[in-house]
Amino acid sequence: MNTLRHLLDFGSLTEKEWDSLCNEADKIRQNPDEYASARRGAVLATLFYEPSTRTQLSFQTAMLRLGGSVIGFSDPRSSSVAKGESLRDTVKIVGSYADVIVIRSPLDGAAFAASLYSPVPVINAGDGSHLHPTQTMADLYTLKREFGRCDNLKIGVCGDLYYGRTVHSLLSALAKYKGNKFYLISTESLRLPEYCARELSELGAEYYEVRTIEECIGELDVLYMTRIQRERFASPEEYEREAGVYVLTAEKLSRAKDSLAILHPLPKVDEISPEVDDDPRAKYFAQAENGLFIRMALILWLTENRSFAQKSPPSAKYPIPAERICTNPRCVTAREKYLPALASGGRCAYCAHIIVG
Amino acid sequence: MNTLRHLLDFGSLTEKEWDSLCNEADKIRQNPDEYASARRGAVLATLFYEPSTRTQLSFQTAMLRLGGSVIGFSDPRSSSVAKGESLRDTVKIVGSYADVIVIRSPLDGAAFAASLYSPVPVINAGDGSHLHPTQTMADLYTLKREFGRCDNLKIGVCGDLYYGRTVHSLLSALAKYKGNKFYLISTESLRLPEYCARELSELGAEYYEVRTIEECIGELDVLYMTRIQRERFASPEEYEREAGVYVLTAEKLSRAKDSLAILHPLPKVDEISPEVDDDPRAKYFAQAENGLFIRMALILWLTENRSFAQKSPPSAKYPIPAERICTNPRCVTAREKYLPALASGGRCAYCAHIIVG
Amino acid sequence: MNTLRHLLDFGSLTEKEWDSLCNEADKIRQNPDEYASARRGAVLATLFYEPSTRTQLSFQTAMLRLGGSVIGFSDPRSSSVAKGESLRDTVKIVGSYADVIVIRSPLDGAAFAASLYSPVPVINAGDGSHLHPTQTMADLYTLKREFGRCDNLKIGVCGDLYYGRTVHSLLSALAKYKGNKFYLISTESLRLPEYCARELSELGAEYYEVRTIEECIGELDVLYMTRIQRERFASPEEYEREAGVYVLTAEKLSRAKDSLAILHPLPKVDEISPEVDDDPRAKYFAQAENGLFIRMALILWLTENRSFAQKSPPSAKYPIPAERICTNPRCVTAREKYLPALASGGRCAYCAHIIVG
Repeated sequence: MNTLRHLLDFGSLTEKEWDSLCNEADKIRQNPDEYASARRGAVLATLFYEPSTRTQLSFQTAMLRLGGSVIGFSDPRSSSVAKGESLRDTVKIVGSYADVIVIRSPLDGAAFAASLYSPVPVINAGDGSHLHPTQTMADLYTLKREFGRCDNLKIGVCGDLYYGRTVHSLLSALAKYKGNKFYLISTESLRLPEYCARELSELGAEYYEVRTIEECIGELDVLYMTRIQRERFASPEEYEREAGVYVLTAEKLSRAKDSLAILHPLPKVDEISPEVDDDPRAKYFAQAENGLFIRMALILWLTENRSFAQKSPPSAKYPIPAERICTNPRCVTAREKYLPALASGGRCAYCAHIIVG
Repeated sequence: MNTLRHLLDFGSLTEKEWDSLCNEADKIRQNPDEYASARRGAVLATLFYEPSTRTQLSFQTAMLRLGGSVIGFSDPRSSSVAKGESLRDTVKIVGSYADVIVIRSPLDGAAFAASLYSPVPVINAGDGSHLHPTQTMADLYTLKREFGRCDNLKIGVCGDLYYGRTVHSLLSALAKYKGNKFYLISTESLRLPEYCARELSELGAEYYEVRTIEECIGELDVLYMTRIQRERFASPEEYEREAGVYVLTAEKLSRAKDSLAILHPLPKVDEISPEVDDDPRAKYFAQAENGLFIRMALILWLTENRSFAQKSPPSAKYPIPAERICTNPRCVTAREKYLPALASGGRCAYCAHIIVG
Repeated sequence: MNTLRHLLDFGSLTEKEWDSLCNEADKIRQNPDEYASARRGAVLATLFYEPSTRTQLSFQTAMLRLGGSVIGFSDPRSSSVAKGESLRDTVKIVGSYADVIVIRSPLDGAAFAASLYSPVPVINAGDGSHLHPTQTMADLYTLKREFGRCDNLKIGVCGDLYYGRTVHSLLSALAKYKGNKFYLISTESLRLPEYCARELSELGAEYYEVRTIEECIGELDVLYMTRIQRERFASPEEYEREAGVYVLTAEKLSRAKDSLAILHPLPKVDEISPEVDDDPRAKYFAQAENGLFIRMALILWLTENRSFAQKSPPSAKYPIPAERICTNPRCVTAREKYLPALASGGRCAYCAHIIVG
């Protein structure tokens, strides 16, 4: 009997597990037909408490390409949630229908909370501004394919480093590999949050904060672009003055190495000039496709040896052991009051915010 | 050639048919893999004129677990309905695509109206405040599994007995079994409607109207909880004063039998304290899972011997035989003007309201 | 290696291809079970930038009946489009997930634009007021089944001839067959647009503009009805005065031939009296079903010899070769600024509007 595995945090994968997932993804890519019935009869549920067509389509396709099928919702307004149902109840019931649950939520820690009550594996498809591990998997799998490794790379990350969940997950994952150097390219107001920067330091990663793409692009092996929403600039004046600085153009790219890989979690808007799409260094469409294969490998792994007939009991029980301890107002524990107070290493076990004792 | 069967009303099933459905559901539960291709190639259409994620997911999963597939809509605003199409046209066309139709509507009698024009079996997934027979099937199948019978039980139903379609269907079904006693637990303003109470009397069922859970919980074999929406209380003052009376807590439960089964159609909100979920007498999650198996059995039965190539002609024809005869403003005949005037036993054949001659 | 085929315009099909599609549709109808696994493992994506339940359900059913599966969205507000993603990016990424794309858009020329960047076949399910070729396929296939031919017919088209995309596509297709005569039945303000009328003339088709159904119904082999939206009448007074003129009733039908075929793209509202539905000359429900079979044949054909592993490179490249040349404000080139300026025969290659040099 194997125990129930979830994918909540990229960091919870062992190096061996991650290597094995990448190998599986490579095999699926080479022989997709061999996997076309691998999960026939299995059902994946997508619980999307905030819309994200791209991620949802990617997971749906992944399951369908394995021969399984898909249920779920993409709009909380038309779901039982709108009637005030707890996340716990939703997860218990949908878990009695499905073989694996993919959850996306605007609340930090929602996927971990779901995993406490789910009878089936839970995959975190984005929880608030906290983590987005399958995007990180797509990112790192792309680096593996492009460079054959995830270490000893010079990586620029550009755009909204303050709110960007994708960036936080990526930096946290890459900092654990040896020899990576990071160039954090942002406005003053969208700098990497203190707690993320501290994590880089703790892991011994070298990083530099810079204000323009130009001042580091010549050094880079990887340039990871992200979108800055107009309203995230400190003022309309700052937007007018600075927005263009964070747009990647063919001209800026002319100073980069031939081996540079440009990544982007997509969708992109204006932050990459259209002509860059035809540059062979643009790898973001390949990255989206890689995301599909690595999600197929993930679903395959998590649903191994599981069957509709055998569900696991939830790991958490009532009654509630303690008062809420996390002060993050966007933490899932602020909304779902029954959740047990759990902490680890001085941080909230749901959203990783520091517990102020 | 078998004739076209629908599931509009639980009461239209013979005892033999119902037993056979329960046996089939048991068999599916024991050997789900044997049914995984039972309806391969078949298509179920979900026409949801009002959103209900839970019911829709349950039907979708049921069809997918039988190897079939699913089409449909969950939001009438984005459907042809929004363009003013008649229910009749929608049903004829979707019926030419699908092998079975599941319909949910805010209008009383909509499923019966649909069945008049459908070339394929129609399942009523809730029509206004009228009936919700597959919920009743989940309820009764749960009693069968818990007690081995549906007769000679003491059943408390608590909450919104006035508007609660689920409760009406359940009482109507259980009153036909011998020896059941009902405890109707509600506020004065949310008492069981006159016509439902009359039906209980006519069927010779014993019932008591009570105001609190406490005064009967010690007697009960079954406690069926339902949600009371805040706005359903007669006044904010009544809400403040009485809401707590209709909440099931561990404390109230301490006076109940060990063999009590607590049911709820779900989703639930505050009417059951979270700690009750861990009480072994809480059967509502099992009830939701039972709903999946009994729906699988139902779909299997209704689509037996049917094929995409052979559709049945609709049973109703134009021209319209008579004027509208039902005075219920929420009856489907008030919206869909072409429907033939049909009555049976002094009641509207669509919504069961009494015809005032 | 076959090249990538799309279905953007009915006119791009050769006569041989069209005959072959009709034959395939007939074969599917006769033996649906033989096709139930024909596209097992394949994925169809429905990109619906404006809702159209009917068309979307038809395409979904078509793919499911071939054993394939379906992803997509029906509401642009909940998609990446809402975040400002270009059509090009959406098509590239969804094309890396799916085997065939069905697109519907409020913008003229959107399907052609999508085809420039898609690695998989694109089907036009309606682009603004431009074309709706699979509706035309359903229409012509119905004529073929009813009359054994698409030539030498007297065809009345009634309703909104000005905005009606369905009508434009149909007339354009039928004008290429020998000996057809058209009766254009509309109000003064909803007459066929100049450019459509000119096309009829150029193709040598005979047509008459009339104001009432009565004055031509006795002549007709085919009466193609369409909906006139209330707000399309020139004034409320004109609506009151004229709306009834464009309603088909049993009485008007009494003057028609026994062999008349009444068609309608559906959904219909008040433009056909309910009693007409039971007239054997009403062929619109058969037409909807024909639409399903012809779409199955189309998907089968376009996805022949294609596999998930082998995607085609997009046909268009950056940088943009020229300034925008089309003046139609609803042309896709007005929204998607990166699109190359393409014209053919003095018309915009996207939306077919005349280029004003």
